[in-house]
Amino acid sequence: MNFLACFVLICFFTVPLVEGRVRHYKWEAKYEFKSPDCYKKLAITVNGKTPGPSIVAQQGDTIIVELKNSLLTENVAIHWHGIRQIGTPWFDGTEGVTQCPILPGDTFVYKFIVDRPGTYLYHAHYGMQREAGLYGSIRVSLPEGESEPFSYDYDRSIILTDWYHASTYEQVAGLSSIPFVWVGEPQSILIQGKGRFNCSTPGIQASLCNATNPECTPYALTVIPRKTYRLRIGSLTALSALNFEIEGHNMTVVEADGHYVEPFVVKNLFIYSGETYSVLITADQDPSRNYWASAKIVSRNSNTTNGLAIFNYYPNHPRRNPPTVPAPGPHWNDNEPRLTQSIAIKSRQGYIHPPPQTSDRVIVMLNTQNNINGVRRWSINNASYNLPHTPYLIALKYNFTDAFDPSPPPDGYDFANYDIYSVAKNVNATTSTGIYRNKFNTTVDIILQNANTMNPNNSETHPWHLHGHDFWVLGYGKGKFDKTKDPKNFNLVNPIMKNTVPVHPYGWTALRFRADNPGVWAFHCHIESHFFMGMGVIFEEGIEKVGPLPKSIMGCGDTKGFHRP
Amino acid sequence: MNFLACFVLICFFTVPLVEGRVRHYKWEAKYEFKSPDCYKKLAITVNGKTPGPSIVAQQGDTIIVELKNSLLTENVAIHWHGIRQIGTPWFDGTEGVTQCPILPGDTFVYKFIVDRPGTYLYHAHYGMQREAGLYGSIRVSLPEGESEPFSYDYDRSIILTDWYHASTYEQVAGLSSIPFVWVGEPQSILIQGKGRFNCSTPGIQASLCNATNPECTPYALTVIPRKTYRLRIGSLTALSALNFEIEGHNMTVVEADGHYVEPFVVKNLFIYSGETYSVLITADQDPSRNYWASAKIVSRNSNTTNGLAIFNYYPNHPRRNPPTVPAPGPHWNDNEPRLTQSIAIKSRQGYIHPPPQTSDRVIVMLNTQNNINGVRRWSINNASYNLPHTPYLIALKYNFTDAFDPSPPPDGYDFANYDIYSVAKNVNATTSTGIYRNKFNTTVDIILQNANTMNPNNSETHPWHLHGHDFWVLGYGKGKFDKTKDPKNFNLVNPIMKNTVPVHPYGWTALRFRADNPGVWAFHCHIESHFFMGMGVIFEEGIEKVGPLPKSIMGCGDTKGFHRP
Repeated sequence: MNFLACFVLICFFTVPLVEGRVRHYKWEAKYEFKSPDCYKKLAITVNGKTPGPSIVAQQGDTIIVELKNSLLTENVAIHWHGIRQIGTPWFDGTEGVTQCPILPGDTFVYKFIVDRPGTYLYHAHYGMQREAGLYGSIRVSLPEGESEPFSYDYDRSIILTDWYHASTYEQVAGLSSIPFVWVGEPQSILIQGKGRFNCSTPGIQASLCNATNPECTPYALTVIPRKTYRLRIGSLTALSALNFEIEGHNMTVVEADGHYVEPFVVKNLFIYSGETYSVLITADQDPSRNYWASAKIVSRNSNTTNGLAIFNYYPNHPRRNPPTVPAPGPHWNDNEPRLTQSIAIKSRQGYIHPPPQTSDRVIVMLNTQNNINGVRRWSINNASYNLPHTPYLIALKYNFTDAFDPSPPPDGYDFANYDIYSVAKNVNATTSTGIYRNKFNTTVDIILQNANTMNPNNSETHPWHLHGHDFWVLGYGKGKFDKTKDPKNFNLVNPIMKNTVPVHPYGWTALRFRADNPGVWAFHCHIESHFFMGMGVIFEEGIEKVGPLPKSIMGCGDTKGFHRP
Repeated sequence: MNFLACFVLICFFTVPLVEGRVRHYKWEAKYEFKSPDCYKKLAITVNGKTPGPSIVAQQGDTIIVELKNSLLTENVAIHWHGIRQIGTPWFDGTEGVTQCPILPGDTFVYKFIVDRPGTYLYHAHYGMQREAGLYGSIRVSLPEGESEPFSYDYDRSIILTDWYHASTYEQVAGLSSIPFVWVGEPQSILIQGKGRFNCSTPGIQASLCNATNPECTPYALTVIPRKTYRLRIGSLTALSALNFEIEGHNMTVVEADGHYVEPFVVKNLFIYSGETYSVLITADQDPSRNYWASAKIVSRNSNTTNGLAIFNYYPNHPRRNPPTVPAPGPHWNDNEPRLTQSIAIKSRQGYIHPPPQTSDRVIVMLNTQNNINGVRRWSINNASYNLPHTPYLIALKYNFTDAFDPSPPPDGYDFANYDIYSVAKNVNATTSTGIYRNKFNTTVDIILQNANTMNPNNSETHPWHLHGHDFWVLGYGKGKFDKTKDPKNFNLVNPIMKNTVPVHPYGWTALRFRADNPGVWAFHCHIESHFFMGMGVIFEEGIEKVGPLPKSIMGCGDTKGFHRP
């Protein structure tokens, strides 16, 4: 007894002295039948759930995830979205870039430090497994004694996704076939893993759709009247840009991708796949009823029903439907308010990380839809990204020179002649495994230039996500980026830092980042099918500063074999 | 011109001098939508087809298959069923035993010699990909100038399979869930990749089932009246034991698993998954019409419609339905004729490989259905087989001692007390990665002992397949094998050699093989779900004689890494 008491005391007094706690998770990824929108289909679960378990940690903590792959014949890899993996680039979880895939039956141990507070995500980064259900949230709180520059009573997290009834295998068979077969719009929008598909839809097998299945009971966010909630909202849609609204409740945007935002109030929030926001909501409406929270597809002319959750005023029953019709939300093709919101997001006074005032390199990335040997692809400056057999991190660190194309992809496009408003005269592109290598500690500007797709009068929204870094969002514009004039209007005073940012239809978005994180990092459209179809690039910096790579990330390409210790 | 002529001449005269030709195949495995039984679902194809391309070769030829895995997130491996891989045990294609899985995007090169004439098969040997459609036939002919001990005019091959509409992922989710969810009987039986599901079945989505799809036109075996056909029949069913019959036509059995059979005539042929037979059929019936060829499920009380093909007498139209009702076939639960056929198969006079008259070791293998931690499994002597992370061949060759359980599984069971006719008193089993190690060049007897499953009054048929060897089939019996009495009745005179053999319900089957092929070899029930559920064992012999292993088979378990050349 004395010994135990002593042990407890030691622990108690020891904790505050260590840098951060170790948070150890044991996860198993598996296919299981789930009915998140009442329709039963196989989903990839973590420990039986989709979304998977939340990681809740404090700044400085070490996260250890022992991931067992029980997907039978399918590999897996998990990316920790928004975590920069400083010093641990091999645990970024990007299959083909930072690691070999995790084989069925294997257990892979991810170990990394969450070095900043904020709202982050995790999700599969292999094939299209994210949209099969392998995703969840990461919430990192401030160290003890430090406080946020805003106050709230409770902290809640939700993730928005879109949901298909076709398996990812069925989708991919279409994406890579000639002619191209597009899966179409999602069957439903899920709020925190729950949505509602109409089981009476003609052609739906009755045995597969059960409207009374508790798995598709709308998610209820229960609030106490007059209290203020910090709601952390992440989007991990496969395809859709969304608008989120809680009827009758304004939201004050205070955080974006882990950075404090100069607060601004919105009636509804546009959110793109890969983004996270914290909004403050005060339960200041009539407390005798519930309210609809809704997520609506924008930027595409979708027939998908809005995702609905219940903003539940305690003590009303969480399943009591609000007496109203959910807010209609903005019109799908009204780009103006989306651009307005993008521009409105600035870094919060007192928390500004000033950007370098100049950059060492400017890369203009023209986003186009193309064909390669008759297969539909997406390209950057006419090069469509292909994964190599040996992950870049390993190939570069150990100088496997044949592992990928040594010639870098182009830094720009034919600015003078390319008409971004029309279908390209030549829609053909080439594949590439080449990468952008940046000198360590230099400053790089990226201009994402949108264009017309292969359909006349059509330009899509692409949310681009950068691994291993945050970037400053210097500006957004309409039409073709002008290298001379537009940089003069860059926001070099209080730009927000983010890891994911949209490029709007027929528009451009300008980013700046410091190439200061030794490793190899993907930068890609976060629409899962777009990345699958080649819409991404790879950056390298400071590879010589990367420490010895763990053997666990190997096993593919040039890393089949062994050496005796 | 002169040069070309000279080159052609050189080739012409050179061919007969070499040992065997090299037959080079380039294959791509891919998911594609197919409607083999009129119902559209994803299938794994090879070069766009299921069954995949046939390998047609001559004894002594070298087969090279460059297999590209385009399954996106899923690995693959192909087993060359019946090819002993003498000197090339690393190309047996058994994932977890002889190689690591082939990763998506990778191309793996199989290279082996077909050293004997006969009828063989190939199929995926990973997860349950075989029943997803990855299979085909291998036909090896005699060397020039040699002839078979029977005559025929034409040589034809067909493969019989059963076909599920649920994906293998859906099936496996059920197999490994608690409670166990069984996929049930197959939706159809395919003859050479073609079957017919009734699209009017209630609950079937009209858009998925099209009875007029040419992909489900019944297979037509066109014959010229009065000619004799050698029909090579292989079964690669996932589950079903089949009976094959061509109405009005007797069949003379002349080959089984690559060995000549003392000819015997049957009206219909029982065939189990993994077996091949050659039968001679003479088109000696009324030539003015066609005849039904039918494949019927036996040994299970199945509601699956018989598979049908058309035995088409030229010049009748190959799609002209026969005027008759297909033969009803034997009753599903009539075991006697099945046992009779098994016993009837003897080695052909003049082609007998005499078996060793004694054996060095006897292993009795009790086949039982069990639970492990509540999950349904199959076991041998109460040990249910689990794949290790490092394939045995690599682990044993390079002495990775931790890769699997070093204690061997038991050589027998509690013969005195185990009641094979009842559900076991304790249905729980244990998992094992242990293997049977046999001294090189010794003779091993295997007694496969069937028993009751976990359902009262139920014992199933299990076709067991041995990799890397043929075995002598010494005998079959009913009930419990008697170690003292039954060996006295073993056929040591003219037993057939086979690589796959059934153990009948509540019966036993006795085999003998020479442990003379250096390597590591699986021996397992060829029912795909049964092997997945643990119904298999591993044999090792002469590992010290195995040459250096190719790096291409590595990449998993202890073989993640690299060494500089």
